[in-house]
Amino acid sequence: MQFSSSLLENAVSEFAKLPGIGKKTALRLVLHLLKQETPSVLGFSETILKMRQEIKFCQRCYNVADADICSICANSMRKQDLICVVENIRDVIAIESTQQYNGIYHVLGGVISPLDGIGPNELNIEALVNRVQKENVAEIIFALNPNIQGDTTIYYIQKKLNAVPVKITTIARGIAFGGELEYTDEMTLARSISNRQPIESYMAK
Amino acid sequence: MQFSSSLLENAVSEFAKLPGIGKKTALRLVLHLLKQETPSVLGFSETILKMRQEIKFCQRCYNVADADICSICANSMRKQDLICVVENIRDVIAIESTQQYNGIYHVLGGVISPLDGIGPNELNIEALVNRVQKENVAEIIFALNPNIQGDTTIYYIQKKLNAVPVKITTIARGIAFGGELEYTDEMTLARSISNRQPIESYMAK
Repeated sequence: MQFSSSLLENAVSEFAKLPGIGKKTALRLVLHLLKQETPSVLGFSETILKMRQEIKFCQRCYNVADADICSICANSMRKQDLICVVENIRDVIAIESTQQYNGIYHVLGGVISPLDGIGPNELNIEALVNRVQKENVAEIIFALNPNIQGDTTIYYIQKKLNAVPVKITTIARGIAFGGELEYTDEMTLARSISNRQPIESYMAK
Repeated sequence: MQFSSSLLENAVSEFAKLPGIGKKTALRLVLHLLKQETPSVLGFSETILKMRQEIKFCQRCYNVADADICSICANSMRKQDLICVVENIRDVIAIESTQQYNGIYHVLGGVISPLDGIGPNELNIEALVNRVQKENVAEIIFALNPNIQGDTTIYYIQKKLNAVPVKITTIARGIAFGGELEYTDEMTLARSISNRQPIESYMAK
């Protein structure tokens, strides 16, 4: 792509660095911003930078936060003895969006994956164990992606918490709403049969 | 979508204002920036703002420019008596990317479209007529999109330039390279027959 302005070219290059944004899309976005009034572009630019400079990670659960403690941990209306363990911030947003969960979180920052060089020390596992030992935690719910890495992480943490009297559960695995039995893989189908639920609990949902 | 940080939420809202970027994509982009080092996000933020604040429009052809005159107009290697008339900056970039055109441009900033409230006065038509009258222009090539608005604009400008002895042409309309006769609309096919070219000029391409 040939540009007659290096200012335009640099802006397009910056946008094209973002994941999933190619040169053509970047040009479309930059030309859109070029059409906006300067204060509006200033707002865009400052908001992004402010986010990067000022955002904090909750000292308790490692979720993104505006203060030292995130708004979820600070909310006394939520069950403080129910911890949902997730891989990353995106999972917190996904679960919060269901508006069905009333406990708090613990963000691991990943899952154990030796092939990617991620061991337990790279994750917020020690902090979780400390939390469970110090705080009065009734239940830990693992909400990790159902794959080998997720299962390994659950197994590792479970062993670490062996001595602590805490209930450990994992979110249900089965066939997704709207899914079709015919196209479901064997492992999921087998698990959904062995973990079958009484019909009342199903209808109550 | 539920956010536990207003800094994050604001950044996502800013990205979601861009055309074709939904909330989920915006979140993905923001989380990507959150993972980058602060100087790199500062670079992103400053480049965008600098582009908006400092970019100029060429006083001669209305293309984007870093100075009062764009780099294409200022290039003495290009034919200064050959003007290609285009609708917008994106068309300049598209033609420049072919690396086949060696003249200069005139960006109209749109085409005549009464339904959208765009008349000749909203466009850089007067400036084009002035250029042709003052500069020693040999040929004007219209490179507008082939539709009613484009044709109306060509017709209007052509009438304005009636008294000036300048050659006026338009880019060839016909079947695109790789296109199929069978699926080409009748108007295009009819034009491509009436505007048939000697085989030598075809092979020379």
